[in-house]
Amino acid sequence: MNRSTFGNLFRVTTWGESHGKALGVVVDGCPAGLPLCEEDIQKCLDRRKPGQSKYTTARKEGDLVEILSGVFEGKTTGTPISMIVKNTDQHSRDYGNIACSYRPGHADFTFDQKYGFRDYRGGGRSSGRETIGRVAAGAIAEKILAELGISFVTYSKSIGPVEMQTFDAAEITNNAFYMPDAEAAAKAGEYLNQCIEKMDSAGGVVECKINGVPAGLGDPVFGKLDAVLAEAVMSIGAVKAVEIGDGFAVSRSNGSTDNDGFCIEDGQIRKTTNHAGGIMGGISDGSEIILRAAIKPTPSIAQPQETVTKDGEPLSLEIHGRHDPVVVPRAVVVVEAMCALTIVDALFSNMTSRLDRVIDFYRK
Amino acid sequence: MNRSTFGNLFRVTTWGESHGKALGVVVDGCPAGLPLCEEDIQKCLDRRKPGQSKYTTARKEGDLVEILSGVFEGKTTGTPISMIVKNTDQHSRDYGNIACSYRPGHADFTFDQKYGFRDYRGGGRSSGRETIGRVAAGAIAEKILAELGISFVTYSKSIGPVEMQTFDAAEITNNAFYMPDAEAAAKAGEYLNQCIEKMDSAGGVVECKINGVPAGLGDPVFGKLDAVLAEAVMSIGAVKAVEIGDGFAVSRSNGSTDNDGFCIEDGQIRKTTNHAGGIMGGISDGSEIILRAAIKPTPSIAQPQETVTKDGEPLSLEIHGRHDPVVVPRAVVVVEAMCALTIVDALFSNMTSRLDRVIDFYRK
Amino acid sequence: MNRSTFGNLFRVTTWGESHGKALGVVVDGCPAGLPLCEEDIQKCLDRRKPGQSKYTTARKEGDLVEILSGVFEGKTTGTPISMIVKNTDQHSRDYGNIACSYRPGHADFTFDQKYGFRDYRGGGRSSGRETIGRVAAGAIAEKILAELGISFVTYSKSIGPVEMQTFDAAEITNNAFYMPDAEAAAKAGEYLNQCIEKMDSAGGVVECKINGVPAGLGDPVFGKLDAVLAEAVMSIGAVKAVEIGDGFAVSRSNGSTDNDGFCIEDGQIRKTTNHAGGIMGGISDGSEIILRAAIKPTPSIAQPQETVTKDGEPLSLEIHGRHDPVVVPRAVVVVEAMCALTIVDALFSNMTSRLDRVIDFYRK
Amino acid sequence: MNRSTFGNLFRVTTWGESHGKALGVVVDGCPAGLPLCEEDIQKCLDRRKPGQSKYTTARKEGDLVEILSGVFEGKTTGTPISMIVKNTDQHSRDYGNIACSYRPGHADFTFDQKYGFRDYRGGGRSSGRETIGRVAAGAIAEKILAELGISFVTYSKSIGPVEMQTFDAAEITNNAFYMPDAEAAAKAGEYLNQCIEKMDSAGGVVECKINGVPAGLGDPVFGKLDAVLAEAVMSIGAVKAVEIGDGFAVSRSNGSTDNDGFCIEDGQIRKTTNHAGGIMGGISDGSEIILRAAIKPTPSIAQPQETVTKDGEPLSLEIHGRHDPVVVPRAVVVVEAMCALTIVDALFSNMTSRLDRVIDFYRK
Repeated sequence: MNRSTFGNLFRVTTWGESHGKALGVVVDGCPAGLPLCEEDIQKCLDRRKPGQSKYTTARKEGDLVEILSGVFEGKTTGTPISMIVKNTDQHSRDYGNIACSYRPGHADFTFDQKYGFRDYRGGGRSSGRETIGRVAAGAIAEKILAELGISFVTYSKSIGPVEMQTFDAAEITNNAFYMPDAEAAAKAGEYLNQCIEKMDSAGGVVECKINGVPAGLGDPVFGKLDAVLAEAVMSIGAVKAVEIGDGFAVSRSNGSTDNDGFCIEDGQIRKTTNHAGGIMGGISDGSEIILRAAIKPTPSIAQPQETVTKDGEPLSLEIHGRHDPVVVPRAVVVVEAMCALTIVDALFSNMTSRLDRVIDFYRK
Repeated sequence: MNRSTFGNLFRVTTWGESHGKALGVVVDGCPAGLPLCEEDIQKCLDRRKPGQSKYTTARKEGDLVEILSGVFEGKTTGTPISMIVKNTDQHSRDYGNIACSYRPGHADFTFDQKYGFRDYRGGGRSSGRETIGRVAAGAIAEKILAELGISFVTYSKSIGPVEMQTFDAAEITNNAFYMPDAEAAAKAGEYLNQCIEKMDSAGGVVECKINGVPAGLGDPVFGKLDAVLAEAVMSIGAVKAVEIGDGFAVSRSNGSTDNDGFCIEDGQIRKTTNHAGGIMGGISDGSEIILRAAIKPTPSIAQPQETVTKDGEPLSLEIHGRHDPVVVPRAVVVVEAMCALTIVDALFSNMTSRLDRVIDFYRK
Repeated sequence: MNRSTFGNLFRVTTWGESHGKALGVVVDGCPAGLPLCEEDIQKCLDRRKPGQSKYTTARKEGDLVEILSGVFEGKTTGTPISMIVKNTDQHSRDYGNIACSYRPGHADFTFDQKYGFRDYRGGGRSSGRETIGRVAAGAIAEKILAELGISFVTYSKSIGPVEMQTFDAAEITNNAFYMPDAEAAAKAGEYLNQCIEKMDSAGGVVECKINGVPAGLGDPVFGKLDAVLAEAVMSIGAVKAVEIGDGFAVSRSNGSTDNDGFCIEDGQIRKTTNHAGGIMGGISDGSEIILRAAIKPTPSIAQPQETVTKDGEPLSLEIHGRHDPVVVPRAVVVVEAMCALTIVDALFSNMTSRLDRVIDFYRK
Repeated sequence: MNRSTFGNLFRVTTWGESHGKALGVVVDGCPAGLPLCEEDIQKCLDRRKPGQSKYTTARKEGDLVEILSGVFEGKTTGTPISMIVKNTDQHSRDYGNIACSYRPGHADFTFDQKYGFRDYRGGGRSSGRETIGRVAAGAIAEKILAELGISFVTYSKSIGPVEMQTFDAAEITNNAFYMPDAEAAAKAGEYLNQCIEKMDSAGGVVECKINGVPAGLGDPVFGKLDAVLAEAVMSIGAVKAVEIGDGFAVSRSNGSTDNDGFCIEDGQIRKTTNHAGGIMGGISDGSEIILRAAIKPTPSIAQPQETVTKDGEPLSLEIHGRHDPVVVPRAVVVVEAMCALTIVDALFSNMTSRLDRVIDFYRK
């Protein structure tokens, strides 16, 4: 089967293949009254094309979004918002070996196993272009969250072995890698140059920090906020691991260190530390939410790789053409979008947690 | 809100608090015709009580399961299977500070923030006893999977800083920690003795390997197998990170290394390596599925911790009573159960991926 | 498959067979803070046993409900509420022909076709006793709705050919049929006496009127309030038709008659008529919601009926034992329960329809 | 909120407003390998424009469908199928009173109550044009069902007081009303002429008969086939009642009449009658499924109607422009589409009902 819908109350259904006529998304469950125009969406889509550098490919078409429904007189109407990005880059070409063989590190083999055949043009549905719908929907989610003072800072924490050492938010959009550390970004560039020379590619880590999330979001025990964030982020193509707060490091920690104490600050109950990354028992605790995702190296590399055709013939495959040596910078906005979708959904779902608040809502 | 149901086709709804009358689960969507008795379930529940050692608490009651519906003449009928475990250990006692303060590392604060008040007895719904329902349901899932040749090996990969060095499956049930390495288990015991002396606790890593999963399971793009596994496992109380295959290590790898090549073996298409951990593009590829979960240290420790009462008064809290210095061994069967539930659901969902197979199914 | 869960935000999962150990329900998504005790539930369950007359069977056990989770210190905690009713009436007996043949008008044949075999004791899962879980859950829903001034009046509009002519709410609980018309009730009794003499049974119509529902509930286009009400009520065993407002009569009406006009009353916009039964475009309009359900005659009758065994042998079957000549009175509370579940769910879902209201909710 | 998705395994998400840029649908969960082209869809969409008579309006644009994704080399790929119909008829005009008042019988008032404002152009999302997405998706569902020998006959059973007296399938497409009785169709035409003269409108009944449905479809107790059919059909704009088999007539029947007996025919177990309309206990029994829906009169009529503006001013409203005096003929294909979507979903869901069949499926 296929499951192209994410979310329970704020539901997002994406569709489209890399080289089909178009890609798009339907956002269902968006409240009425949100000011929304195409520029709001376009800004986020443009973040998928960082730096215009040699490290990232830029399609000529520019991925222009069009809103087809759900907005009237500049505001959302509460009905489904359909958005579309046309593929202008569908020139027919010879896909050669790719059409009939299994690229290592790609989903070619598993799609064939599942569906019996596949749209092999540019990876079809398993292409990174599938994330266009996620990002377009995420733009709406972030706009809603902004109204409630919830904001995101997302960046590349590491590219290959190069990890950021300092954090300067202003630097994030200053380099081709969305790294908050200029020096690390420079080193990442050098590392990627080496990768390009070797006809190889690199991975990295994306970190997302979310501020302003009220305490109480997340639905135990199977809709816990960390569980849904993990699902949301792990559903992105190249992600192989997700951690919250101290993440894997907790396995080597002790209770006396890992436990976040409580204190009173400005008359409010606050945590003294944030090892938990803002989520306790699957519910947001009001402090910053911290998530990291590990992104694997771009699987398309120019050096020869051993594989087989779908008929079982051995093949040495070289993949040429436009391929980023690293997808981490492009993944930044996608991770952020998936987190935004998750938070909006949790926010809506939480409105029925207490009877007195439901009564207040309807008695007004 | 609350979300106590997991799965789409094989659906599991758990209920119950640590010190309520009982805990249980309703399994809905189980196919008719599976031989099932209480002993099948009890075996798995008993795995939640490893080693009978000083490192794990053992309730006297034994957590005996009773099947209340959905089974007739020794076989499942296709109707919902309700299972219950009574709490015999509900002696009323004085919860003292715990009733009115926020234990560091626990969900007390977030439950109060979400719901306005909470059942504070033994952690209520956020207790580890909540996993009884998961394990009982997982037992059914594993029984179904066994019929298809799908099997699990799950164990503690590390306890605190002590990591396994060798793998001996037979050793797993030989020690109190479910470690497949006797020497590492001995070291883990020593480490935990130190923790107990310091009135502290430890975390660790659980690894789950699944064999026999056919290629094709997982529903792109939001029901990808890795995404749902991540959600399933991250929904377990103490889990703070999940990784598939090489996991976080991919971020420092290169495409030429990370890509799994293909070859022909015994006339079949096989992968030459398994960095992907058995899942490509969110779909199982027929090789072993590998997942790891990071478990945080037990939050209940006897040393004094700084916290506040719900009324905002500072408090130095010492938590005495039965508390494991590590929950990793108990988490082993829970991680396995959640993986089993996920695989069964993906298996069912995949039956409609190809029209010719649907037609075959109904034409027979 | 099986689908034993109803609702999206207020979710109800029922389980249990007629002659199994117990029947029950898990209510998930109930807001925290609702005062709740077993007596609240019992009152509704007792309405399933109307009149203690010869027209309805009364099990000795009394169907006593027990709450197992989700309530602490007399209030709901926001966690799943598990309720159970034990079957005390499980004496083993000889089911004779019923075990191996298909009772006309029953689900025996279709259960066998679907699941391959069935629990034949008392109809198993297809027994009317399955509604115990619905009614128990409905009791909680009605308690929530009462807090918001939403109330139900449900009754038998007709029994066989005998239709009510007058409406006196006080009369509803005065007779064995829950009819709001004493004279009609008397005639219904006479009619049923004839049915009993002829070893036959009768059907009827249940009408449910819901007052105080705020305008705005219902989620176009597939979660429209009338659509979900229809699904909810049609899922009750004996129901074969559902109508809203004027229902089938609209097919013979004209627009000039059927359209409900608007006027100003006490400074409020009101409808001048209510042909629509309180729902316009799938959304509640603030006026009384009116629903009717057609209930088929009890299929278990004592006169001989032609059928076959599961092995295909012709059989003349006589069904003796306790069987109501009419199930309409018992269905009254079940229809009401399903409507209450639907309205609560729609009420919760509607809280995210307008952005300004969401912002208000969280800004407070 | 909004709920624009129908189905669990074969999921349909519709979007679009009457006078927006376009309308469309995303079909998710369609198996791979179904031959599909735009002509397959267009044929069904064209059935929404019956007869080209004075009784039905025909937009000039022709509602041409375009498939944007999910089909490759003439076959479905298993990925989401996005279909779009552009609105070419969006000339800006003066909506006058309609923009600021509540048309009787329409959803204007309830949309405003729910969402705070609405797209008033042509009814916006509550327009009959919303059904374009349903019909396009239904075309795919019917194509799948045809592969399994499942077929539909759907027609107008009555128009206003004029009911069909004979059934001739060939006649259905011979008249402007999709009536299977030429004489009744002629009378219906006369009746509608009178309605037009009186500036009034009429309703009617649509009947759908489904043949070839295997026994076993439908998921007790909340996904019963009749329950989901009722929800599906009641979610269509103008439908106010739904019945299965004998429907409301069962309320006046007796068990001895209503019960369908069983017999052996050609070595197969068959029912002797079909009062149940092909569904017993919520599960298909292998005989013809029979469903009827009551359609209300077109609410837009030219005669003056009393209403109010959104600011509470009384208004006498006359609605001119293109409006069918009856929507029943247009509803025929919509009812059929919703039934087809329901049956496909039930067919897929039923594949996991028996363990032996699941094992067979995967062992092959």
